[in-house]
Amino acid sequence: MAPDPPPKRFGEFALIAKLFAPLAAKDKGAFALSDDAAVVSVPAGSELVVTTDTVVEGVHFLRDDPAELIAKKALRVNLSDLAAKGAVPKSYLLALSLPKWVDNQWLTRFAAGLAEDQNRYAVTLIGGDTTSSPSTVAITITALGLAESGRMLRRAGARPRDIVFVSGTIGDAGAGLAALRGEGTGLSDFVRSALVSRYQLPEPRLALGRALVGLASAALDVSDGLIADIGHIAEVSGVKISIDAVRVPVSASTRALWGEGNDATVRAATAGDDYEIAFTAPASARARVEALARETGVDIHEIGRVDAGKGVLLLDERNRALPVTRTGFTHF
Amino acid sequence: MAPDPPPKRFGEFALIAKLFAPLAAKDKGAFALSDDAAVVSVPAGSELVVTTDTVVEGVHFLRDDPAELIAKKALRVNLSDLAAKGAVPKSYLLALSLPKWVDNQWLTRFAAGLAEDQNRYAVTLIGGDTTSSPSTVAITITALGLAESGRMLRRAGARPRDIVFVSGTIGDAGAGLAALRGEGTGLSDFVRSALVSRYQLPEPRLALGRALVGLASAALDVSDGLIADIGHIAEVSGVKISIDAVRVPVSASTRALWGEGNDATVRAATAGDDYEIAFTAPASARARVEALARETGVDIHEIGRVDAGKGVLLLDERNRALPVTRTGFTHF
Repeated sequence: MAPDPPPKRFGEFALIAKLFAPLAAKDKGAFALSDDAAVVSVPAGSELVVTTDTVVEGVHFLRDDPAELIAKKALRVNLSDLAAKGAVPKSYLLALSLPKWVDNQWLTRFAAGLAEDQNRYAVTLIGGDTTSSPSTVAITITALGLAESGRMLRRAGARPRDIVFVSGTIGDAGAGLAALRGEGTGLSDFVRSALVSRYQLPEPRLALGRALVGLASAALDVSDGLIADIGHIAEVSGVKISIDAVRVPVSASTRALWGEGNDATVRAATAGDDYEIAFTAPASARARVEALARETGVDIHEIGRVDAGKGVLLLDERNRALPVTRTGFTHF
Repeated sequence: MAPDPPPKRFGEFALIAKLFAPLAAKDKGAFALSDDAAVVSVPAGSELVVTTDTVVEGVHFLRDDPAELIAKKALRVNLSDLAAKGAVPKSYLLALSLPKWVDNQWLTRFAAGLAEDQNRYAVTLIGGDTTSSPSTVAITITALGLAESGRMLRRAGARPRDIVFVSGTIGDAGAGLAALRGEGTGLSDFVRSALVSRYQLPEPRLALGRALVGLASAALDVSDGLIADIGHIAEVSGVKISIDAVRVPVSASTRALWGEGNDATVRAATAGDDYEIAFTAPASARARVEALARETGVDIHEIGRVDAGKGVLLLDERNRALPVTRTGFTHF
């Protein structure tokens, strides 16, 4: 057999110079990606908030997904972590492992996706690494943000009698992935594409997260699954958290795929990839939280309460714990 | 065919709690890896120096390499970037993509390798991400260091009449990889393992890099290949650099594999993975550089000079440019 001809692709250095260096133009500390490292200044009174997340072909996205959406998802899952911590995003590093099938068209669309989101979220590429990969695309982004010293929102901090809130709706991304995998062939195109777009393109809740500083007692972004992530808050805060299934915000689109009952709610609350913010706050903050929803344009739902004890429960209408065999997505 | 039984492996969260959280114990800002992000404080008068590098199975290491050496190499290639910038390493984030074959024994050895190097280099794990991978192990580390504000060593800054230096020896890692791939079957075990160990376990030149702040006009670590990397300095500094082949420090071990002539020198100077520091400095700094070599215990060789112009030349004994068809390793 004749080998496939190699795809048209810039060499490693041309790729950096042509596609990635322009993304670094707004931060002097990036040295136009021409040095071994970047320099980051942190103003007095601030701390750097640092997070890293990898997205892998076949796990977090599919090979046929549009490259600009893959780029945006890779960036946004990191910005979502900064959002949940109340940090203001500043810059990011991009480590890209590329198999042979990736060509210039894919790379150009990938960089265009990053450029759009850089404008949308006011962040700048400051460094990275490009390597070959034997088989699949892997993208690791490390995002840097700023927070007032000592004020970053933590997972630890939920106290008995606090209330539990979550932004947006839960389960749409999981339903979107299920639709991509062949479920719900009877869905309307409108519903189907709404769900798929929630899977492919999360929306980091940056304005909400920033406004929660000083208000929320604990916060995180919902990535593994609502129940699993609320469980993380319960564990590190040393409390018990009860969620009312009927109050978990499941969209009409996800209901159209999975139905009305508690089984569907359990599925939505354990699917993951939502990138909403779950947080706890004292009851005295309730009016301020409601005002925040209006100011940021992001729905916020009260879904449960914190008690002394440990663990997380999902309760039905009669306060009986629903069986949850798998609280969220785990990689292994 | 019956599928292979799954290897014994911790779940994702147990892996973090048992193997990685202990590596984060020394930095309060890591929150024991129990939060979405880490907090990094930067003292007044300092800047953060940030770099990221990925190592991929089948590209930077081989599946059968000892897991502790893979871990150390992944960390050290990043520390080498900080070294070349004169920065003091502080902490790092680890993004790990794991295929199914990776078991607890591999992971335990991997974490043990990191623990050893954390002690050796006084760095602490502060965050990361663990994902599944369809086929190969990929490790992305983002390393954070501190430098006095405005004093980070840059690639830009070499000036005409500066002298070019390089630490250690050049080509050993490339020769070690060649030996692993079957070259040099007649080598003694001693020579062979010396070369292989230079490939598997680079030594970041941290003390030297720190001492070069205020002395070197430009610096970088030799990862792509000496000629390619000196070419990076020439390009961003806007100068021409000439290297004397006869002065490139090639070890007796590498000579034993590749021979005495200029062809072997070209191969050594374009092989990459050396993780030595190449730097330029004014002639007035020569005595101080020689003293530094004694103080740090790292050999430093004068190998060339900077002139007005552009590009990089490797010159033979009669000052004729040697043909270099490929200046270093590129991923594509």
